[in-house]
Parts: sequence; structure tokens; C-alpha cells
Amino acid sequence: MPAPLHWTGERLQILDQTRLPHEEVVLTLAGADDVAGAIRRLAVRGAPLIGVAAAYGVAMEAAARPDAWREGAARLRAARPTAVNLAWAVDRMVAAGGAASEAEAIHRDDVASSAALGRHGADALEAALPAGPLTIMTHCNAGALAASGRGTALSVICELADRRPVHVLTCEARPLLQGARLTVWELRRHGISHELVVDAAAAGLIRRGEVDAVVTGFDRVAANGDVANKVGTYGLALAAHAAGVPFVAAGPMSSVDASTPTGDAIEIEERGADEVRRDWTLPGTAVRNPAFDVTPAELVWALVTEQGVM
Amino acid sequence: MPAPLHWTGERLQILDQTRLPHEEVVLTLAGADDVAGAIRRLAVRGAPLIGVAAAYGVAMEAAARPDAWREGAARLRAARPTAVNLAWAVDRMVAAGGAASEAEAIHRDDVASSAALGRHGADALEAALPAGPLTIMTHCNAGALAASGRGTALSVICELADRRPVHVLTCEARPLLQGARLTVWELRRHGISHELVVDAAAAGLIRRGEVDAVVTGFDRVAANGDVANKVGTYGLALAAHAAGVPFVAAGPMSSVDASTPTGDAIEIEERGADEVRRDWTLPGTAVRNPAFDVTPAELVWALVTEQGVM
Repeated sequence: MPAPLHWTGERLQILDQTRLPHEEVVLTLAGADDVAGAIRRLAVRGAPLIGVAAAYGVAMEAAARPDAWREGAARLRAARPTAVNLAWAVDRMVAAGGAASEAEAIHRDDVASSAALGRHGADALEAALPAGPLTIMTHCNAGALAASGRGTALSVICELADRRPVHVLTCEARPLLQGARLTVWELRRHGISHELVVDAAAAGLIRRGEVDAVVTGFDRVAANGDVANKVGTYGLALAAHAAGVPFVAAGPMSSVDASTPTGDAIEIEERGADEVRRDWTLPGTAVRNPAFDVTPAELVWALVTEQGVM
Repeated sequence: MPAPLHWTGERLQILDQTRLPHEEVVLTLAGADDVAGAIRRLAVRGAPLIGVAAAYGVAMEAAARPDAWREGAARLRAARPTAVNLAWAVDRMVAAGGAASEAEAIHRDDVASSAALGRHGADALEAALPAGPLTIMTHCNAGALAASGRGTALSVICELADRRPVHVLTCEARPLLQGARLTVWELRRHGISHELVVDAAAAGLIRRGEVDAVVTGFDRVAANGDVANKVGTYGLALAAHAAGVPFVAAGPMSSVDASTPTGDAIEIEERGADEVRRDWTLPGTAVRNPAFDVTPAELVWALVTEQGVM
């Protein structure tokens, strides 16, 4: 199995996530614009993994174009607006003069964060939930295809599954089906029992008492604790809150943005209509396609990072 | 344009909803088992329209098999479990001895209900919302392809659109995409401005203040006012309630079931895995596929029937 992201020392290799789960195609990226293109078309995605990929993108650009790499870094920084890790990683690389060792440090830190936040999240849920098997709902993909190591939300879930029986309900995450395509692929590799549900079914299953906890990643956290994540997360948080079920959002501190006061200040990326239309509606149908939504802090039972539970 | 449902006096013709929006194919049904099959595979769907189709199914069965038609009626009654109109219409036909005139009366009543509940729903929303253009969100399909006349939720929306500018946000309604396939097709025919959104985007758009009201149909209402409707309705109602946006559920009295005490007593149909899996997840992936969810009465701003607002 190819790694979701691999640094050869000179080039960045990524598993093309648009081809999963049916094909495992590795792309070799050579500079900032290659990485920006892969981020824009979601060949590499997930806030933390975008940050790591962008760091290597800047390193390759600095090595190839010593006189003009900052322009490439600026283009890369603008590839997607909502996740803060992209800007954070590019800024950190620019401050470090584009050194590849800095990108490797960012990558190493992300691996360590994944393991630490997985333990913190599992500890918090184990303290709150009675002993015995658990059913955990997750959304979109927040695993090894979204962050280093075992990911963010999936790191929490895998850590729990190391300790007791866990069954996962994964939402499909229309329009691009990262749950149906990517989370199912990862859960099968981990050998963790799972079922797929359409996004619209999630709230009703939570209400019916079929879910012990909801665990998602996050793309950006504002200073007041509001959480931007894949569209659909807010609905899960509302349903979990109404049912008294813990809603956990897990991610690295590099996704926490103290300079954004509240969730309403987060720019929500609006993506193209063709992602939604496919071939099943009438040609030319107008579409709204926000990629993210904002969950207010009061619905978040626990915000989990590598530093612990907030 | 063929009618969604047409009684020739001897046979029932329906527009095959599984082929929309790209093909308009009319099916001619000749007896109770034909109608039951069409209902099971959703060629005809929507609680009120299922009731009308079933009534004609019993009438055809009684005419063709005077000695054994009650068995066919019983098979038809069991075709789908959640909407109460199916059982209600079959029981009414059996009590009337299978007379075609009784099916015609059920059909006529449903046409009248559609017009009346459209007026009642529009009146209620006009009284509550400031003057000016409105953006209404709807879910699944509750139009002429789900009930007689202009439907239920779409009857309310069309009535509002007769009075002032209305823009509709329609959720796609995975897994079978009745919103993307059917509601878009109907709204285009009505000339009502609309955009399609994935189900997961609905709650966030409501939270962002982009929706003035949410209007859906219902498949069954329990004695305490709990509403069973297409999976995803509960999440819309939660988001509308949190945002202070009216949530209206509209349908005929024949969908109100006084013998079901609460929503928790409503049997929720679980449909097959292939509807969800399609070709984008791994073969053999396990699936949960509930077709409906339950919205508790306290989240319903108005329950609208032909008799008025409850």
C-alpha cells in the first residue's frame, strides 16, 4: 500500500485521493504549483495533510528557484481558503527560508500530534462512556488520508478500537464522498467494523440512540472555539447535542487560529456546481456548494488537540 | 407532459419516477400486484400519491378477480410500512367493496387537499414573515410527483410564489435523489427560481441566515404531532429551530394517524444497501439505509393540512 504522502528527500509523492478507493495511483510533485494544483483538485486533502504537503511544496520551490520561490509560495498559500494549516505551513516555511529540514519538522510534528490527540480523545471518551462496545459516528475523512499517522478523528477511533470493541458509522460526505470512498477504505485496512450511511440519515440515527459518540476532524478552530469542518458537521453536532451524545472535534493545534475571533469570520469555500450536479439532475441546474460549515463552540463536547482536551 | 398519475377508467397510468428527470416513461398498471411492485421500487412514491395509486390498484383487482381481490389488497397494503396513506386507502377501498368510484373519490379529495393545504401554509408563512422575496428550503420531493394537484410542500411553495418572489433551495435527498431528480424537474416546469444543495449543506445554510422557512411534506404524523418524513427532515428541523426559522410540514389528513401514539412507534423502513453503495465505495461495504426519520412535535412550527394549521 503506497503511503498517503511520502517525501523522497527531493520530491513529494502523494496517493491521488480522487482515484480511491478503486485505484491506488501515486503522483510525484515537483514544485509549489504542482502541490497547489493537487490541493485544489483534492488529490491531497485534509487540513493537516494539506499543511504538510504545502511545506514540502515550498521546500521544492526554494531549491529549484532560489530567486523567485516566494512568489510560488504565495500562489500555493492561496490554493484553498478555509483550512488555516495551509497558510500556517507556508508562512512557517517562508520564515525558515524554505529549508527542507523545516518541512520535515512540520511533518514529524504532525505525526506526533496524531498519536497524542488520539490518546487524549480516547481517554476523554472512555472517562465519559460506560464500559463495553461503542458505536462511533464520523463524517467525511479525518484519517491517514487527511493527516499524518492515523489521522485526527480516526486516530481517536483507532485508539479506542485498540482498547475495546468499536463499530463505526461513517457518513458518505456528499458531494465528493470522502466518507464512502476514503474512510471506508481506511477502516477496512484497519479491520474496524463499519457501516456506511447517507449524510441525511445521520441525525435520525443519533436521535434513535444508535450512536455513543460523534467524532470528526476540524479544518479551522476560531479563537472562541467555533469549529469549521466539512459541510454536514454542524448538523451532526446539533443532533448529538439534542440527544446528549458527546460531539468530539479532533485536530492539531496548527488548525487553531487565534487570529479568527469567531466562526462567522471564517471564509467558507464555495466549490463548483459540477461536483453536485453529476448526471442525475437536469443539465444547467443552479447549485450552492459550500465545502464547510461552522459548528458553534457550545455544541462541542470536547475539542481535542495534541495538547489535550479543551 | 404526461400526468404523474392518470386513471383511464379501467387502467392506472403512472409516470415512472425512477426514470426522471431524463426520460418520461408512462407505465400502465393492471392490478394490485402491479401497483405494489411500482410502489416498492418507487416508480410511484410520496405518501398521498401512494394512497391514490393503491386505491386504484384495489379497484382494478376487485374488477378483475371478484372472488379473490381481498388477498391482492392485503399484499398491496404491505408494500411499504412507513406512510400510513397506503393502509388507509386500502382499508377504505375494502370497506367500499372495491368500487372504482371510491378510488375516484379518494383521488378527488387528494386534489382538493393539495389546493387547500397550499393556501393554509402560504397564509401562515405570510403572516409570520416580513414582506419581500423569500428563500424557502425543501427536502426530497413533495410536489405533483408525491401527491395530487401541486403536491404538499410544493403546493405551499407554489402558492407563495403566486403571491411574491420565491427562491427555493432544494436538498438532493440521497440516496435516491428525489430532490435532485424530481423537485428540480417540477420547479423548472413551474418556472420557480431554485438551487440544488447536498443534504449535508442544508443545516449550515440555515444557520448562516440564507433560509426564511423550511417546508417539507410528511409521510405519517403521530397522535402527539411527531412527524415521520424522508430521512434528513429531522436535521433540517433541528437547524431551523436553532436559527429561529419556521419549519412547516405539510400533507393531507389521510397521513395523520391517531392510532400511532408517538413518532417512536412508527415503523421506519430500512431499504437495500445497493441504493447507497453505487459504484463509489468498496464492494461489499455494509450499509444502514433508513428511508425516514422522526421529527419531534416541538420542532415543528406548523403542521399544515387541508383543514388548516395545527
